[in-house]
Amino acid sequence: MTTSREIRLISRPTGMPAPENFELATVDVPEPGAGEVLVRNLWMTVDPYMRGRMNDVKSYVPPFRLGEAMEGGAVGRVEASNDPAFQQGDLVLSMKGWREAFVAPGGQLEKLDTQGLPPQAFLGVAGMPGLTAYVGLLRIAALKEGDVVFVSGAAGAVGSVVCQIAKAKGHKVVGSAGGAEKVAFLKEIGVDHAVDYKAEPNLAKAVLAGAPDGIDVYFDNVGGEHLEAALTAARFKARFAICGMISQYNATEPPAGPRNLALMIGKNIRMEGFIVSFNADMKADFVRDLSQWVSEGKVTWRETVKEGIEQAPDAFLGLFSGENLGKMLVKLA
Amino acid sequence: MTTSREIRLISRPTGMPAPENFELATVDVPEPGAGEVLVRNLWMTVDPYMRGRMNDVKSYVPPFRLGEAMEGGAVGRVEASNDPAFQQGDLVLSMKGWREAFVAPGGQLEKLDTQGLPPQAFLGVAGMPGLTAYVGLLRIAALKEGDVVFVSGAAGAVGSVVCQIAKAKGHKVVGSAGGAEKVAFLKEIGVDHAVDYKAEPNLAKAVLAGAPDGIDVYFDNVGGEHLEAALTAARFKARFAICGMISQYNATEPPAGPRNLALMIGKNIRMEGFIVSFNADMKADFVRDLSQWVSEGKVTWRETVKEGIEQAPDAFLGLFSGENLGKMLVKLA
Repeated sequence: MTTSREIRLISRPTGMPAPENFELATVDVPEPGAGEVLVRNLWMTVDPYMRGRMNDVKSYVPPFRLGEAMEGGAVGRVEASNDPAFQQGDLVLSMKGWREAFVAPGGQLEKLDTQGLPPQAFLGVAGMPGLTAYVGLLRIAALKEGDVVFVSGAAGAVGSVVCQIAKAKGHKVVGSAGGAEKVAFLKEIGVDHAVDYKAEPNLAKAVLAGAPDGIDVYFDNVGGEHLEAALTAARFKARFAICGMISQYNATEPPAGPRNLALMIGKNIRMEGFIVSFNADMKADFVRDLSQWVSEGKVTWRETVKEGIEQAPDAFLGLFSGENLGKMLVKLA
Repeated sequence: MTTSREIRLISRPTGMPAPENFELATVDVPEPGAGEVLVRNLWMTVDPYMRGRMNDVKSYVPPFRLGEAMEGGAVGRVEASNDPAFQQGDLVLSMKGWREAFVAPGGQLEKLDTQGLPPQAFLGVAGMPGLTAYVGLLRIAALKEGDVVFVSGAAGAVGSVVCQIAKAKGHKVVGSAGGAEKVAFLKEIGVDHAVDYKAEPNLAKAVLAGAPDGIDVYFDNVGGEHLEAALTAARFKARFAICGMISQYNATEPPAGPRNLALMIGKNIRMEGFIVSFNADMKADFVRDLSQWVSEGKVTWRETVKEGIEQAPDAFLGLFSGENLGKMLVKLA
C-alpha cells in the first residue's frame, strides 16, 4: 500500500492566509483500477491565483473545498499504470498537486516530453506561467513593433518571461520588482530599466525615468499603485494586459482602485483582463517559440525551491511577501 | 460694426466651477476680410468635456486660455461672406461657441445640410454627442447580437442616443439616470429597465434586477460607483466603452477608483477609453444610420435650453448637477 501526505484547506482565510488554515494529512493511496494510473509527484507549484480559490465565491474556477486536499499543477512520475497510454517511469503533468502520490484516470494526466528541459520547467517558464506571459503580451496587449513595455512583478514566474519575450522581440522594457536581488536579476535578463518599487517614493516618475516618452504596453501582475503609475505613464492608445493584482488578493476591505482611471479616456487606453485557460489555442505556438528562445539563450529562468510537502503552505504564503525570485516551487521527491 | 458678447474664462476652477470663473465681455467684430465669413451664432453647446479644458494640463485638447473666450460647438447663420463656399443665410457648424458672432476663415466652418432636422440637433443627437454614442457602442464596445447593454447617464445627450441605438438593434437595455423625470424619459425611449440611481442604495443590485444574467456591454458616462456596479454586474467577456466620468471631473482629491477592478481578470473584461474625434471615419455611416432611425421614429431626443449668452456658464454648471434632460443647449439668437 502506498501512502501519501497531502495539504488540506481546513478554514477559509480572511486577509493574508496563515499556517493554521492548512493541515498536513496522511492518506492511503489505493492500487490503480482499470484505466487508472498511480503517480508519485516530483514537483508541485504554488501560484497567486490559488488565493482566490480559498474564498467561497463563484469565479472561473470553483473554490477549494474545506477538509479536502487542494489542487494545482504538479509534475510526477508514473509508478504503475492500467492505462495503455502511460508506462511506468513516464513523466506526467496533472492538476493533482498539494500531495505526494495519487491514483487518477489516465485522462486526467498529460504525458510530458521535456525536450531537454528540467521537468519542473513545465510548472513555470514552459508551463502555465510562461503561456500566460505569451498570451498576455502577444494577444491581449497585442504587442507591436516599437512598443515600450512596462511589466510589474517583473522578477516573478510570469513577469520574467514577459520581460524576456519583449526583449527577444526587440522592445524596450521597463520592469518593476522589490529589492536589490530582483533588480539585479532583471538586469541580467536584459531589462532596460529596472525599478525597485520598494525604494521609489514616486512609482510613475520611476517608470517615466526609464521611458521618458511613456509606455505603450503594461503587463499588470500587481494592481494597485502599479496600475496607477502605468496609467500616468501611458501613451496614447496604450494597451494594458491585466493578468493579476497580487497586491489586492489578501485585502480585507475592498481596495481603492486607481485614482486616475479617467486618464483612460483622453489617452484612449484599453485595459483587458484575461485568464490563460481561455487561450489554450496559443499553446502550440508558445511551445514552438519558447523552445527556440530557450535554445538561443534569449529566455532563461530562476526558481525558488522549498523541499517537502510540509513546506507547501509556506511556499504559497511566501508569494505574497515576494519571497520568490522567479518560479516558486515545492520539490516533493 | 457688429458687436458680440462672449464668455471668457478668467480663473481656473478648483473643484466645481463657479460663476466667478467666468466673465461676460462685449467685443467688436471686424468686417470679414478675404476668405473670411461673418457668422451670427444661433445655438451653442455646453458639454462635460469642457471641464477638462479649464485645467492647465496637457491633454488631447489644449486648455482654455485665461482672459479669452472659450471654444465649443455652435450652429450659426452666415451674415456676410468673402469665401465663395458660403452664402449669406447659410447655416454653419463651428467650434466658435461661447460667443454671439464672429469672423473666421471659411476653412474653420462646416456648411450644414440639416436634412429636415432642427439646426441645434447637430450639436446633439446628430452631432458630436450622437456620433460619440455610435462610435462607443458599435466600435469600442463592439456591440454584437444578444448583448445586454447597461448605460449610465442614460438620459443625457450621449446616453440617450446609446440607449436608442441599442434598442433599434434589438438589445435589452438597462439605463441609469437621476430622478423620476429622467426615469420616465428612459421608459419613453424604450429602455427595458430604468434605474434611478439617486433612489438606489445598491446600484449593482439595481442593475442586476434588470439584467439577472448580467451585462455584456457597459457604456460609461459617469465613472465612480456606476463603473463599480458595472464590474459587479458584468458577464464573462463584457466590454466597457469608457466615454466619460462626469462624477469625477470636479474632484479636488484624486477620486478612489472602482474597488472591484480585479474582477476584470476572472471575467476577462475589456475596458477601453475613447475620444470621438479620433473616430471621425465613422461619421458618414453614423449620419446615414441616424437619419434612418430618426425617420423610422426609433431615435428621438430631448433638449434643455437656456436663453442668452449670459446663461451659458449656468448651463455648463447645470451639467454637473444633472439639470439637463437630454442635450443642454444655449439659444443665442
